[in-house]
Amino acid sequence: MQTVNLPVFRLKENQLLSVNDVLAVEEPLEISIRYFQDNTFITKNLSVTMRTPGNDPALAAGFLFTEGILSSADQIEKIEQVSENQIILSLKKGDSLDLSGLERHFYTSSSCGVCGKSSIEAIRTLKKAYRSTTTFSIEKEKITSLNEKIRQKQAVFESTGGLHASALFTADGELLALCEDVGRHNALDKLIGEQFLKNNLPLRENVLFLSGRASFELIQKAAMAEIPIVCALGAPSSLAVDLAKSANMTLVGFIKPLSFNLYCGEQRVI
Amino acid sequence: MQTVNLPVFRLKENQLLSVNDVLAVEEPLEISIRYFQDNTFITKNLSVTMRTPGNDPALAAGFLFTEGILSSADQIEKIEQVSENQIILSLKKGDSLDLSGLERHFYTSSSCGVCGKSSIEAIRTLKKAYRSTTTFSIEKEKITSLNEKIRQKQAVFESTGGLHASALFTADGELLALCEDVGRHNALDKLIGEQFLKNNLPLRENVLFLSGRASFELIQKAAMAEIPIVCALGAPSSLAVDLAKSANMTLVGFIKPLSFNLYCGEQRVI
Repeated sequence: MQTVNLPVFRLKENQLLSVNDVLAVEEPLEISIRYFQDNTFITKNLSVTMRTPGNDPALAAGFLFTEGILSSADQIEKIEQVSENQIILSLKKGDSLDLSGLERHFYTSSSCGVCGKSSIEAIRTLKKAYRSTTTFSIEKEKITSLNEKIRQKQAVFESTGGLHASALFTADGELLALCEDVGRHNALDKLIGEQFLKNNLPLRENVLFLSGRASFELIQKAAMAEIPIVCALGAPSSLAVDLAKSANMTLVGFIKPLSFNLYCGEQRVI
Repeated sequence: MQTVNLPVFRLKENQLLSVNDVLAVEEPLEISIRYFQDNTFITKNLSVTMRTPGNDPALAAGFLFTEGILSSADQIEKIEQVSENQIILSLKKGDSLDLSGLERHFYTSSSCGVCGKSSIEAIRTLKKAYRSTTTFSIEKEKITSLNEKIRQKQAVFESTGGLHASALFTADGELLALCEDVGRHNALDKLIGEQFLKNNLPLRENVLFLSGRASFELIQKAAMAEIPIVCALGAPSSLAVDLAKSANMTLVGFIKPLSFNLYCGEQRVI
């Protein structure tokens, strides 16, 4: 369930009227990983994220991939939704896990989602040397039309005003996938997770569209999936631009029907 | 430094022009706590949050308070910014720390900021029984005027479009404090942290204004500071409304010049 109906009061013409409102659902999802070590199965709680229900297996897989814990869908034995708000991703026997990531203590609060890493080095999940070498390009008219294409499909956002969207496009501007969530990082993890589970990664010929601002962590997740072009409806942060530049990615922001800002990677915009 | 200038290309009338753009700065801040135990000082990294520089001591103190680790400014010996992106908050000797919170393993990603708690119970930092008993009220015309009052002061947001704001008002609609950050939870932690360091908590006679959406965690932070009325420019999530109801708080959303939605606590709106 992505939305709920709720009776509220609405101020209108200076009167408080009883009306019905539609809200985006926000619920905790506990993500655990199960793996085989020293002849025994270990189940470890990794994260509780506040998300909008739906696409939970993709969210869990995408989160574990963009955090650098999983590298291939082939590592996964099964993904079980053991209850509405709990999911367990089981690794195949014999697949080893980089526990150094898991052993970091996390303490956390940040809307950017990079939150909680216990040292500054740890915020970087990306291989330091990564640089996109993809040469494909997109026409500037295609960029300004992306938003209109997703708004036609983004049903929940339209009704609640409470969801972020991430969408994957071809260079021709064809919409391939769209995910929504109260958390912008979850929307992107769901999108990348779906492609990860289909063994479609890396996404070197795709364009990522973000319905809001572009933070460092969203760019890092895009870089993990090797998406060369990121187009955001809102503003990027300083560190988002720094990372996109160092990874030789194309970053576009403030997209409006007739204008946008191009921050780096201009060789891919024609 | 809250903003940086950057040369970018801007699409305008179908041409890519070289212009200068102003971006909100996003940088990691490592928050550590130093305490005395078993005759020795222990320094523990608690969090790395992606924030906009500025008000870092308040951010650290507010974060530790809203996470339930600190309860009074009197516990603090000193707060040192040891480098641009590192802050150490030292507790007074003899002040004990609830390490159960610290010992939780965190693994995290969520724009809601509740992220990373390793069990679903752990997302709740608030005392279960908390219910606001404040009876003060606000006129509905005051609510619709809050946004205009902060926009006059919210200089950085206006220039970058990249910052969230949290503001504290009196019931008369007088602006008391305003904090901005790339992370909406950081903006609120800074705001609450400033008041916490001034020993002004609880904030039972104040109104909180949020420049964006209201998530569960923002309502929880407001409840920790015992703020009875929360007014958000954007939409609340389902769980934000649930929590506000159970804490007997007043929650207003979708504020526009002539309208808003009132989700609960209508006895405080006159």
